[in-house]
Amino acid sequence: MRIITVGREFGSGGRELGRRLADYLHIAYYDKEIITEIAKRTKLSEEYVHNVVEHHPYPLLPITIGRSFNPMGNPMFQITQAVYAEQTKILKEMGEQSDCVIVGRCADYILRDDKPFRIFVYADMESRIKRCQSRAPEGENLTDKEMKQKIQSIDKGRAKYYEFYTGLKWGDKANYDFCINTTNLNIKDAVPHIAHLFD
Amino acid sequence: MRIITVGREFGSGGRELGRRLADYLHIAYYDKEIITEIAKRTKLSEEYVHNVVEHHPYPLLPITIGRSFNPMGNPMFQITQAVYAEQTKILKEMGEQSDCVIVGRCADYILRDDKPFRIFVYADMESRIKRCQSRAPEGENLTDKEMKQKIQSIDKGRAKYYEFYTGLKWGDKANYDFCINTTNLNIKDAVPHIAHLFD
Repeated sequence: MRIITVGREFGSGGRELGRRLADYLHIAYYDKEIITEIAKRTKLSEEYVHNVVEHHPYPLLPITIGRSFNPMGNPMFQITQAVYAEQTKILKEMGEQSDCVIVGRCADYILRDDKPFRIFVYADMESRIKRCQSRAPEGENLTDKEMKQKIQSIDKGRAKYYEFYTGLKWGDKANYDFCINTTNLNIKDAVPHIAHLFD
Repeated sequence: MRIITVGREFGSGGRELGRRLADYLHIAYYDKEIITEIAKRTKLSEEYVHNVVEHHPYPLLPITIGRSFNPMGNPMFQITQAVYAEQTKILKEMGEQSDCVIVGRCADYILRDDKPFRIFVYADMESRIKRCQSRAPEGENLTDKEMKQKIQSIDKGRAKYYEFYTGLKWGDKANYDFCINTTNLNIKDAVPHIAHLFD
């Protein structure tokens, strides 16, 4: 089974790179699908699961709990643990089903026994702000300074989540097979070369 | 002008990667040549220059000074500065002469205005020890533990030298366009793909 995991700084184009890689290789692509699946299985709302896996190992937000999910002890912590456990199960199932690209979700660590090809995508702040501004949803009018704060805050959450569950430093090149800086990169043109680096 | 710089952890195969990249692209390759050239121009011995640029921004070893080189003030420091100044001049000349691959020597920083494609090559300790053992010169019989110490000591020197002259953290992915882990990489097969990543 060929599994490619993509870690990425927010705004670096990691998701685009992952998606294009999956398209180029004609293999499955998992990103938000994982959250939808966790939500389905745990009966938590998608929004809530998204907040847990993107932002905080310890959730800080109000909780929407479905019928059948009834944690014991510290509910915040237990729910987060349940989400992570479900995520682990789902990732392992995905990895066993078919070749795939998985973006985020500590997949590089969770699937480490399957020896995935681990990519980390990053870029300088200026180009990340520019990328985020050009892709901002209708109605989001952040100044560059606000966008920078948003980017830093999301990355901080990702780093915390990753480090909490893996014990490793998020974005530390030692944990990846290669790290690519998209500041001066044409992602589309680079993908076929990236796909064959570790053939 | 196309300039590719290669920073590398000792024993990671960075030099092999740089050499193969230059061969594949039919462009010049500079590595030890730089030291030879500095030695010629400063009248310092090659061995001494090697020690300065590989190990210490402040040299700690006995000095062999040629006839015409006569530093003022603190001789150790002045000589090191002279070596760095000469290195800077030589790298800029090389960069202007033709497309090239330059291994080490803070070239990524010194030639930053020329927007080089900056690669950093690394690998896990186990595979670096194995690589170094398999390439050890006749008569060098280090245990794995001793080899590990040697690797760590050389990398420490490189990091110090780099940080002293650039003010940047050696091996920090932010300072490179592309960082590649050679632990599970076939360098020879990967080179054509690396060559075209930033086309």
